[in-house]
Amino acid sequence: MPYSLDPKRFVQHVGAWLQGAGPDSDVVVSCRVRLARNVEGYPFVLRLEDEKARELATRVRDVLVEQHIDGETIWVGMEEATPIVKLLLRERYLVSRDLAPNDPRLATRPGRGVAFGENETLAVMVNEEDHLRLQALCSGFQLAEAWALAERGDDELGESLEFAFAEEMGYLTACPTNVGTGMRASVLIHLPALVLTKQIDKVLKSVMQVGLAVRGLYGEGSDVMGNLFQLSNQTTLGHSEQESVESLDRVTRQILDYEERARDVMLRDAKTQIADKVWRAYGSLRYGRSMASQEVINLCSALRLGVALGFAGLPPLSTINQLLVLTQPAHLMRNAGRALEAPERNVLRADLVRAHLERANSETGPGGRG
Amino acid sequence: MPYSLDPKRFVQHVGAWLQGAGPDSDVVVSCRVRLARNVEGYPFVLRLEDEKARELATRVRDVLVEQHIDGETIWVGMEEATPIVKLLLRERYLVSRDLAPNDPRLATRPGRGVAFGENETLAVMVNEEDHLRLQALCSGFQLAEAWALAERGDDELGESLEFAFAEEMGYLTACPTNVGTGMRASVLIHLPALVLTKQIDKVLKSVMQVGLAVRGLYGEGSDVMGNLFQLSNQTTLGHSEQESVESLDRVTRQILDYEERARDVMLRDAKTQIADKVWRAYGSLRYGRSMASQEVINLCSALRLGVALGFAGLPPLSTINQLLVLTQPAHLMRNAGRALEAPERNVLRADLVRAHLERANSETGPGGRG
Repeated sequence: MPYSLDPKRFVQHVGAWLQGAGPDSDVVVSCRVRLARNVEGYPFVLRLEDEKARELATRVRDVLVEQHIDGETIWVGMEEATPIVKLLLRERYLVSRDLAPNDPRLATRPGRGVAFGENETLAVMVNEEDHLRLQALCSGFQLAEAWALAERGDDELGESLEFAFAEEMGYLTACPTNVGTGMRASVLIHLPALVLTKQIDKVLKSVMQVGLAVRGLYGEGSDVMGNLFQLSNQTTLGHSEQESVESLDRVTRQILDYEERARDVMLRDAKTQIADKVWRAYGSLRYGRSMASQEVINLCSALRLGVALGFAGLPPLSTINQLLVLTQPAHLMRNAGRALEAPERNVLRADLVRAHLERANSETGPGGRG
Repeated sequence: MPYSLDPKRFVQHVGAWLQGAGPDSDVVVSCRVRLARNVEGYPFVLRLEDEKARELATRVRDVLVEQHIDGETIWVGMEEATPIVKLLLRERYLVSRDLAPNDPRLATRPGRGVAFGENETLAVMVNEEDHLRLQALCSGFQLAEAWALAERGDDELGESLEFAFAEEMGYLTACPTNVGTGMRASVLIHLPALVLTKQIDKVLKSVMQVGLAVRGLYGEGSDVMGNLFQLSNQTTLGHSEQESVESLDRVTRQILDYEERARDVMLRDAKTQIADKVWRAYGSLRYGRSMASQEVINLCSALRLGVALGFAGLPPLSTINQLLVLTQPAHLMRNAGRALEAPERNVLRADLVRAHLERANSETGPGGRG
């Protein structure tokens, strides 16, 4: 039985890219590189007939699962997936809203699915906008590593599948904005000090002026929550992948620098207020009995800042990252084994947060007995 | 050396009436009976010459200290008291704002002072509005006991001092509203459920209609903080002390009953919200790094409600009562041994709250190691 069907798997572990490790992980949560690919000999997804879509999915799935692209690799077909599993995969950033829409009544087109490894470091969506959408995720500020991972996955897939490619253009994609490299590289970056010191608008404006896109935690169109921003490259034509990655890397390093300077100023001028904010957030998470998802994300932002500032006694980044994922609605429902309305979810969410913080405290905290 | 001069005394202990014991102490914090008396042969305070005021103070002081009215008894003269000590005494409800005004530049009239016992159960202000203002304080709903204590103190003083008394009127006092019994009985009552369920205005209106007065935590003109209300009798003429005490007792019992019914309804209909509110208050107190006095009082109100509702793991009422007193400005300054501005007080206040809650937790809490 593939491990994806173990109901406990997704609610006790998160992807390796959320372990809170890697360089500058106190500011940069993670880096992601996504590649769009289409397979020669099949029409683009929009014009792909159901039969062909299924055939392509089977071919790709077999390649992916056999290649162990990321350790033991599993396949989840969207036709078979329950609404909760679809949302679960979205909450883990393994599939897009397009592949797994909110509304369970929206019929799922045949041949759609996702393959991913046990570490969730590599994932490949099949028959989303393009035939293949491969993503590589790394913890911390490791953009080059994420690119190397994606490239390796791309090469491995390329051994078994011939990709649509034109000498003049590069990779051919369903949407013209992806033609060329088919690559989007992005970083998930935590900028609480720039937000608190009201410099964020200025900084984001300058990011957009150099051609990068800024989004919230959950991608295009999502609100900014928990002071978490996604920066990504926009252009796929006229630059090599290397150039795009290096450009994003450079800008990220600059913003990281601004953020760290803003943190230093805050520590110098308002240490008490910051400590108070951080520790009260911890107090609410540690003792609250009902909590909305968005509130957890915002309180975790304060905790993350506290850890970055070196406040002793807070949970490690890995716990904070876990909470962001494990407290999402589908994760709570998967854990409970049934559908839950919001008020019930809020109670179970608070229970889960308390349990994780108590465990972290007993393992590493100053009052620990672990 | 009298113990009052020990700088640690006032910052490590509170009066016995704050021990959180006694009947219905989950609703009624304390009961107080105050008697106004004037000594035959001296003009009322307003017309009392300085020389005479000093003479009277000396006489009364000697009687009080010798009689051990409440265990070891000490005298604090307002002329000698520093501004911090004056405020400290006010914060402990041992003197009034009139006896110890805020503004240190206001010259203190001679012969003013206060005597109180080591338990702070009995205290006598001298040359406030009347020559003597005796108060007896009891923990919990023990109005009859407070009256008995006051009466005993009154009798003991009456053995050495002759009080101004007229057969037709009763005790003569500076202000006509006190003539007769000279007594004011009051209860300090915690009514969070009536406030949360928005029934409080109706209840207080009915209290005032039966001739009782309603005030905030710090007496006349003070705001209601922490859902703590002082109810007291208004009339001193035409009723015996016994009748006044019984009437206040009856009304208090009625309100206590309303409050308990409101708590039952809240527990039935909104247990999660109440638990969340209580535990988040605990989280803020347990981890905050800067806290205004008013906020501590309000957060302690939630804790007090949680204890009353039987939530396990909260600090005992005695700790909550202690915090109300020990976190006041003069107590913090006495503890620090110097004057402190508000921002510094807020930090030390949060430190003190954390220390008390950690101690309570290690002694009695579920995660205790005590």
